[in-house]
Amino acid sequence: MRSPFRTLVLPALALALAGASLRAEEGMWTFDNLPTKQIKAKYGWAPDQAWLDHVRLSALRFPGGSGSFVSADGLVLTNHHVGRGWIQRVSDKDHDYVKNGFYAPTQAQEIKVPGLEVLTLMAMDNVTDRVNKAVKPGTSEKEALKLRETEIEKIRDEMQKKSGLTCEHVSLYQGGQHWIYSYKKHTDVRLVFAPEQQIAFFGGDYDNFTYPRHNLDFSIFRVYEDGKPYQPKDFLHWTKTGVKAGDLTFVTGHPGRTSRQDTLAQMKFAGEVAIPLRLKFLEDYRTELMAYAGRSPEAARQVNTQIFGIENSLKAIRGYKSGLEDKAAMARIAAAEKEFRGKVAKDPKLAAEAGPSWGRIEKVLAVEKPLVKEAMYVSTAHSTLLGFALTLVRLTEEEGKPSEKRLPEFSDANLKVTKMRLAVPAPYYPEQEAFMFARGLAEAQKALGPQHPYVKAMLGGQSPEAVAKTAVEGSKLGDPAARKALIEGGKKAVDASTDPMILLAKKLDPLARKLRKQMDDQVTSVITEQASRIAKARFAVYGTSAYPDATFTLRLTYGPVEGYPGNGTMIQPFTTFGGLFDRYDGWGGNAAKAHGGAWELPQRWIDHRKDLDLSTPFDFVHAVDIIGGNSGSPVVDKTGDLVGLIFDGNIESLPGNYFYDEKVNRGVSVDALAITEALRKVYGAGVLADELTGK
Amino acid sequence: MRSPFRTLVLPALALALAGASLRAEEGMWTFDNLPTKQIKAKYGWAPDQAWLDHVRLSALRFPGGSGSFVSADGLVLTNHHVGRGWIQRVSDKDHDYVKNGFYAPTQAQEIKVPGLEVLTLMAMDNVTDRVNKAVKPGTSEKEALKLRETEIEKIRDEMQKKSGLTCEHVSLYQGGQHWIYSYKKHTDVRLVFAPEQQIAFFGGDYDNFTYPRHNLDFSIFRVYEDGKPYQPKDFLHWTKTGVKAGDLTFVTGHPGRTSRQDTLAQMKFAGEVAIPLRLKFLEDYRTELMAYAGRSPEAARQVNTQIFGIENSLKAIRGYKSGLEDKAAMARIAAAEKEFRGKVAKDPKLAAEAGPSWGRIEKVLAVEKPLVKEAMYVSTAHSTLLGFALTLVRLTEEEGKPSEKRLPEFSDANLKVTKMRLAVPAPYYPEQEAFMFARGLAEAQKALGPQHPYVKAMLGGQSPEAVAKTAVEGSKLGDPAARKALIEGGKKAVDASTDPMILLAKKLDPLARKLRKQMDDQVTSVITEQASRIAKARFAVYGTSAYPDATFTLRLTYGPVEGYPGNGTMIQPFTTFGGLFDRYDGWGGNAAKAHGGAWELPQRWIDHRKDLDLSTPFDFVHAVDIIGGNSGSPVVDKTGDLVGLIFDGNIESLPGNYFYDEKVNRGVSVDALAITEALRKVYGAGVLADELTGK
Repeated sequence: MRSPFRTLVLPALALALAGASLRAEEGMWTFDNLPTKQIKAKYGWAPDQAWLDHVRLSALRFPGGSGSFVSADGLVLTNHHVGRGWIQRVSDKDHDYVKNGFYAPTQAQEIKVPGLEVLTLMAMDNVTDRVNKAVKPGTSEKEALKLRETEIEKIRDEMQKKSGLTCEHVSLYQGGQHWIYSYKKHTDVRLVFAPEQQIAFFGGDYDNFTYPRHNLDFSIFRVYEDGKPYQPKDFLHWTKTGVKAGDLTFVTGHPGRTSRQDTLAQMKFAGEVAIPLRLKFLEDYRTELMAYAGRSPEAARQVNTQIFGIENSLKAIRGYKSGLEDKAAMARIAAAEKEFRGKVAKDPKLAAEAGPSWGRIEKVLAVEKPLVKEAMYVSTAHSTLLGFALTLVRLTEEEGKPSEKRLPEFSDANLKVTKMRLAVPAPYYPEQEAFMFARGLAEAQKALGPQHPYVKAMLGGQSPEAVAKTAVEGSKLGDPAARKALIEGGKKAVDASTDPMILLAKKLDPLARKLRKQMDDQVTSVITEQASRIAKARFAVYGTSAYPDATFTLRLTYGPVEGYPGNGTMIQPFTTFGGLFDRYDGWGGNAAKAHGGAWELPQRWIDHRKDLDLSTPFDFVHAVDIIGGNSGSPVVDKTGDLVGLIFDGNIESLPGNYFYDEKVNRGVSVDALAITEALRKVYGAGVLADELTGK
Repeated sequence: MRSPFRTLVLPALALALAGASLRAEEGMWTFDNLPTKQIKAKYGWAPDQAWLDHVRLSALRFPGGSGSFVSADGLVLTNHHVGRGWIQRVSDKDHDYVKNGFYAPTQAQEIKVPGLEVLTLMAMDNVTDRVNKAVKPGTSEKEALKLRETEIEKIRDEMQKKSGLTCEHVSLYQGGQHWIYSYKKHTDVRLVFAPEQQIAFFGGDYDNFTYPRHNLDFSIFRVYEDGKPYQPKDFLHWTKTGVKAGDLTFVTGHPGRTSRQDTLAQMKFAGEVAIPLRLKFLEDYRTELMAYAGRSPEAARQVNTQIFGIENSLKAIRGYKSGLEDKAAMARIAAAEKEFRGKVAKDPKLAAEAGPSWGRIEKVLAVEKPLVKEAMYVSTAHSTLLGFALTLVRLTEEEGKPSEKRLPEFSDANLKVTKMRLAVPAPYYPEQEAFMFARGLAEAQKALGPQHPYVKAMLGGQSPEAVAKTAVEGSKLGDPAARKALIEGGKKAVDASTDPMILLAKKLDPLARKLRKQMDDQVTSVITEQASRIAKARFAVYGTSAYPDATFTLRLTYGPVEGYPGNGTMIQPFTTFGGLFDRYDGWGGNAAKAHGGAWELPQRWIDHRKDLDLSTPFDFVHAVDIIGGNSGSPVVDKTGDLVGLIFDGNIESLPGNYFYDEKVNRGVSVDALAITEALRKVYGAGVLADELTGK
């Protein structure tokens, strides 16, 4: 993803821009532009159009992830962590399907998931010429933009009416190409099977981003149409043989975003300024939480999940940083940028358009530097209540504006959710609140200095402890009813409120808004414009010989099953059921409760251990170029059979945000054979396994 | 060990000086000075004298390693890699016991190992007072040294005569204490059992220094006396329960040397000058070998083992370097040195004696800097033949001198081996020789510059390729007979030789000798003297509150069984038989021949897989402070029962050369339960297992 900091909330994969000079198995290719010559030269075989169509029509887009059709009767395979929110949605207080798993032995027992929609990409139409023709030469840039947007909307509308499909505009190569992707939308999706969270996410956040790995991270749904199982024309056949080391694999799914086309100056800025600041902020935050946790077992219980989440963010961000510190990779990126800039300089039209863009971005980064730090600390200072208060103050102010002029979280589309979040009961611990708020204020004071307007406004000459104590003791916002009353009372009620947190939020809001505007006006808008010029120049120079930026649209990546050097040795390509039990036993089993039970096994797994063929592969790594959004992507072999299911990248894949390193960047997949072995031997779900394997 | 580069030839463990400020489980303690208060405070229990005596009398010293008595009838346990040379010695062309393993089901079938002697430490006597009394106040330093040496020899002699034991002088705390250690020497040692090298060293050099690990690195011998099994008064009883995570363990064995008492300036020099130079040299060497290997499969076959060895050295040296780059650890070392120097400065006697020593060492390092680089390149330039030639030239010159004045490798004690090595047939490939010699000369030319006397002497204005080609084509030294003839012909024959390699060696010898003398006179002698002054001051300040430098004498270290953070997650404390098969299956089994078969299993293991309890622990890690020389050390629990066998440290233990990091430094041991499970289920050696477990 664009900013490394956005990934913090993602469960397993970080979210994707493409370089001009390609190495080995790098590339998130569109289905119309697969480098078949390269593949054939290296592997002696390449997909033909029928293969590509079959795989594309078997693939599915999930909200935030990927999936695929895997049976004639509409069974759908995705990750457990992609399905988890939906499994949660059909759970209730008596049925925790996330914790305990779920299995519908008959279709009648399958549970419809309200709101879940999955999409098949039926057609891709390149409408670039028509869009470009809508703009006559000599039209101003602003007018041209509007004309293009109008034309695109017109085409989309025409196509949608004609096909009855859901049509979306896709801009590839930063506007170098315009496409309409037409999806068939499936709205009746039912839960068929989910393993226990503990085996799907075995090793928890500790093992997240790592390998060797033992996660059975899959769930199975079924698409219905007119109340009957949907029969897709194309679905992936389950492998009979599995894969072995060296076998070529293909992954099709929806990679999100990366920062691969950032300029060298931007990468340096991330590595030297933005990431170190963020690391310091998170490390301090963790230190404060640990200090609080040290007070009592109850205090530790309250904040353990937060500490864990921060550790996981630190792991991801350090992964990005390690990429930016990789001298050889950075030298390659610098060389590629130099070559590209040389070509731009030689072409008068490109030189006029994009020549100065690198310099302008570099200049603006100097402006951004102090703002990044301010934006980090001019905030709610680890206080949950101040967070509520700020949202309340903004809500009542923004509601008075037309939707498109509001801050995004208060637009008509988001307003309901924002209000609901405010009103919903949430755990609240005054002692923790006072402790963390005081520490947050003290950190801001230290980082910004005592004369910073934020520090002066928040502290008013008092100590952080005194301010925090007074505000927490005086505030009613820990009570959801009090928040609800303010939402309902609207601007009048908030204006009249003497709640100390509301008063602090009123001081914070203008400072934070000013900073946000400064960042937008002075930094973001400039970078967006200049980056778009560079991208257009790149498309002019390199065309479709490179893959376009990831856009959460369907892509194909390929590479062999292959270990890699790591942990001082060579990491094996496969793990096995035997390895799962080794990791369980190696911590002393469930009784040991090691590290919060991260490597505990569900009882069912212990009971059926003796029934399993322990040499069956469990997870595997392969040299494919994936990133967040690819979660749930099917892995297929040359015959198009399903051999695995992407669920993560190794820790060495984190620099993939900036560049692809074929030596160590690996996708981590559940082996298809592990799924059927577990269904038959652990879950007594032979009927389901039979349907999957076509028996 | 003192210099990181000496470790290159050690099989699994790098070889040991101790810091004044102790943390957690740091410490290689002598049996007379265990920090029992510390242990008791932390673990609620500490060894008493009976426990200590029992463990000490059960321990054994092996040549270059450690071992222990483990049965009433004199069975001895050590590592396979400690026993390997001896197992090799009793093998012959029809019986490769290293490759295929060995088992003597009856005592009659046990094989006597010629030359193998193991030692029990029967008594330790502190003779410091008597030694010091031999020197009257006012004696000159040189005279005092001599008087002390004479007195020590006298005491040793007296004690040896009196006890009939083998007595050795041990200097602890760099002369702060003098001890006589009295050993019972066992000279009739017979081989009882060895597993196959492939299971003892499963994962080979790849997995060396790493964890999780699956090495069954043990071998069993029996001590005889008067032709009958020796019945030691003390031997370790085999555990009935094994250990679990958190259990306290003790390790007794013979740690070699470290560099923990080097000054900060020396450590910086190692991290910034010596190690980077060595890394560059080895990396270039590897690059050249790989370029040669790329020529043909046969070329690759010739040099693969060498490349592997270099990779392994690089792994070890990078481990040392990572320690020296650990900012927090270096800050602790700097603070400890500052504190110590402060104490020295406050004491007039110490200040006079050792105050200037740090500065002198730092000064001399500036002298060493250019010499280190020269010493690396003024050499035989990757040429085997030039190596032979230089030894021949030196041999014939040194033989004319009295033994004590010769270079060490030509002393009376070493001369025979040196000659034998010269005369023994060795694989010789002229094409490889010419290629590598040319590259070696080119590297020296690049590193030293064209005007360096070595470069001028060796190249004589020609290109490296031309010099190498002429010398290799013209030399007869690839033929062992030609070398033998020169050894026998002596100085006259070598003087008269026109072999081009001999002519080059005659140019090289004086340059290399000059450099060696410069290093000795200007650097080594100064550092030795100043380091000894610092060490004496340290003993004066801290006394026995710290542990003394490792001296390849019996020590005790302790700590719990405990995982550690690594590879992006937490590393489990135990591996299991299941994990062994996972690592086997994960590479595709024997058929896949992955990475030269590093993770292949002996057929016996595949045949008996079904018979094994796969949850049995295999190897484990514990927070103990060990280093090379500890190989084969018994691991005992609080009851004194044998629970494991040290065979390696994890890769994070490599900085242990400079400091102990309790967060990640772990000893790696074979679990005692793994040995008996394998003996019974894989090797049909239930009789042996019964003897070990006392059944």
